[in-house]
Amino acid sequence: MYPRIAERISAAVDAAFDRQLEFTAELIREPSLRAEEAGAQELLYRAMEARGLEMDRWEIDSEELRSHVGYGPSTVSYENSVNVVGTYKPRTTAGRSLILNGHVDVVPAGPEGTWSRSPWDAQIVDGWMYGRGSGDMKAGLAANIFALDAVRAAGLAPTAEIIVQSVVEEECTGNGSLAALLRGYTADAVIIPEPEENMLVRANVGVLWFKVRVEGEPTHPREMTAGFNAIDAAYTVMSNLRELEERWNRHRTSHRYFEDLEHPINFNFGTIIGGDWPSSVPAWCEIDVRVAIYPGMTADQAWHELQQCLDSTGLPLTATKTGFYSEGYVLEEGSEAETVLAGAHREAFGEDLQSFTTPGYLDGRVFTLYGDTPTLVYGPVSEAIHGFDERVDIESVRRITKAIALFIAEWCGVEEATAG
Amino acid sequence: MYPRIAERISAAVDAAFDRQLEFTAELIREPSLRAEEAGAQELLYRAMEARGLEMDRWEIDSEELRSHVGYGPSTVSYENSVNVVGTYKPRTTAGRSLILNGHVDVVPAGPEGTWSRSPWDAQIVDGWMYGRGSGDMKAGLAANIFALDAVRAAGLAPTAEIIVQSVVEEECTGNGSLAALLRGYTADAVIIPEPEENMLVRANVGVLWFKVRVEGEPTHPREMTAGFNAIDAAYTVMSNLRELEERWNRHRTSHRYFEDLEHPINFNFGTIIGGDWPSSVPAWCEIDVRVAIYPGMTADQAWHELQQCLDSTGLPLTATKTGFYSEGYVLEEGSEAETVLAGAHREAFGEDLQSFTTPGYLDGRVFTLYGDTPTLVYGPVSEAIHGFDERVDIESVRRITKAIALFIAEWCGVEEATAG
Repeated sequence: MYPRIAERISAAVDAAFDRQLEFTAELIREPSLRAEEAGAQELLYRAMEARGLEMDRWEIDSEELRSHVGYGPSTVSYENSVNVVGTYKPRTTAGRSLILNGHVDVVPAGPEGTWSRSPWDAQIVDGWMYGRGSGDMKAGLAANIFALDAVRAAGLAPTAEIIVQSVVEEECTGNGSLAALLRGYTADAVIIPEPEENMLVRANVGVLWFKVRVEGEPTHPREMTAGFNAIDAAYTVMSNLRELEERWNRHRTSHRYFEDLEHPINFNFGTIIGGDWPSSVPAWCEIDVRVAIYPGMTADQAWHELQQCLDSTGLPLTATKTGFYSEGYVLEEGSEAETVLAGAHREAFGEDLQSFTTPGYLDGRVFTLYGDTPTLVYGPVSEAIHGFDERVDIESVRRITKAIALFIAEWCGVEEATAG
Repeated sequence: MYPRIAERISAAVDAAFDRQLEFTAELIREPSLRAEEAGAQELLYRAMEARGLEMDRWEIDSEELRSHVGYGPSTVSYENSVNVVGTYKPRTTAGRSLILNGHVDVVPAGPEGTWSRSPWDAQIVDGWMYGRGSGDMKAGLAANIFALDAVRAAGLAPTAEIIVQSVVEEECTGNGSLAALLRGYTADAVIIPEPEENMLVRANVGVLWFKVRVEGEPTHPREMTAGFNAIDAAYTVMSNLRELEERWNRHRTSHRYFEDLEHPINFNFGTIIGGDWPSSVPAWCEIDVRVAIYPGMTADQAWHELQQCLDSTGLPLTATKTGFYSEGYVLEEGSEAETVLAGAHREAFGEDLQSFTTPGYLDGRVFTLYGDTPTLVYGPVSEAIHGFDERVDIESVRRITKAIALFIAEWCGVEEATAG
């Protein structure tokens, strides 16, 4: 296929690329923090609708979702948590269907004063687009839409169904993609352009979130030793968890695709809060913990080990699930989808596609573990996701968009649009 | 003096004791947390006014206060922070004047569910009155007023000025009592019925409050080792401070009145907060610290050592003063005030007065260090001040009230009220 069609598609991506960046910037300017995704989802809905896709949106709450093994216990209401899906319906059905998935939710910016500029103004400086969510993953969401655009702008009509998904909750539970799967959206392959350094994710970790609350025995500091400081005690909890983390890291040599990583299992103490008054021995302290687990370990197995670890402290504490409760996955080598992506990548980048293992959560696990679908998590170069001055490499986004568009053409097949 | 007058005063305390308890309960039912003291202060104002005292109240903010060496840097507005003072003016002036001081502010209750009952309902169970502020120190505030009542109800008129003070800010800065001193209220002795186990405070510590903020380097946990976790780092800060605490405790043998205490210098990490998201390496963490210092060490000297300790961590942090910035004090032995209190105590309790060293902050330092006035911090038996189920021993309150009333009679002198 490639020589002529590839040139047409590549030219179409270039021709629309300024508009693609502008749309990405518009998305960044909507701070789609958890439970505040409505503005960005509305933009995406309108963008897909304007392209003639068959539209669907729904609040992601259902009995089926909550009872699924991959459900992440949510601590927030899903009243405003809406998934948006637009489906391209082919005139002729000949090729393989495809889901282009991306998540619209972003993590908090942290103290904004530490950013070089507002996290929400989406400025371009020296070839990078800045902003919270720029890399993770509004550039990818826009790339999905503009890749499909480019195929059609090149005068081509894909010959298989293409389902464009903008989901919520990827940063905390993964329930958005799970809800899309349970709504019945399936395809022969999935692409998720997360910020992955122009590489394909071969394997990743599962993630669990939980909150540990330690109870103290408050007293006046004058009789401090008669009390029990919950903040000091929280440190004991953290130390014990760090020991478990190191034990799990030592086991990496027995986990396929993790053997060569230095420290694949990262426990993060992400938030802490405790105590009411400087001169009262604190009665309570809570820490939010994120742990990673190897593929093949279930969340239940991990939870059991974590509880043993917490019990071993002998402290008065409770642990509560607060989000992710997920296994990791491996993208098995040899799929046709990967072969097609390798070709598209070589065409777009002039280099061979590399795969790697990432120690982060990915919604890819939903389609891989529960949809039995080859899932290609593959996206642009970024820096500082979840950090200050998050940014995405613009030239990388251009080439990733081309690769996705080329993948569409090859995987779904195309016919000349004028042939109809 | 004692035999006959003592009997009359003791009987008067007993006669009004139910009303005294009811008034104490009313005070407890006003949750006079910091900046919310208005309701309780209004009760006290009306109670003193009804007794014919010469009334004064004022917002405790002034240039003089803020530039005083004993000022505690406040982090809140003093717009609603009002001291209340009622002065008894004698018909005949013959004896020595007296300040009866107490603080109206209470510390937060902490998680109320952990209390056996509401912290604000002031129930009496098995000889204890429960509630936040019951011991610390609404029982004392009421005792001051009802002690003066008892003398007068016994048909006696004190022959010196008696200044009854209800101050704010004792739990955080000490600026309330300092403001009363700077307003010109002085006397020949001061009594403060803090909850001191029916004993007299011989010495206490100074206290400093400060906030340490540690800056992190946020990243996604997938690349955790490239970031820097501010919550983990806060524990390094705490460990270094704990080392300094132990060093200061080892020095106790060279501090008069502290030689025999096991652990007089208590550092308390009272509150902690940090991070924004479980799956972001946290960008910041703040801890509120309370430290104690021996009498004779100035707050400036302590602050210098504390900053050296913090600097030695090598961490990116800032330390800010947030309240107490005070020296400790010693009540020198041999004062006439102490002798009079010893007599009053023996009469009320049938036992000798014991003195002791307390490792907590006391407003007594204001009158001792800056007013050069013998200050008797002496009050009832309590349990769990700053803890759950704070309570004060009712029989102890009765006897303390008698001792204060007897002190008034002896220190200020009395004449028969009908003699006028």
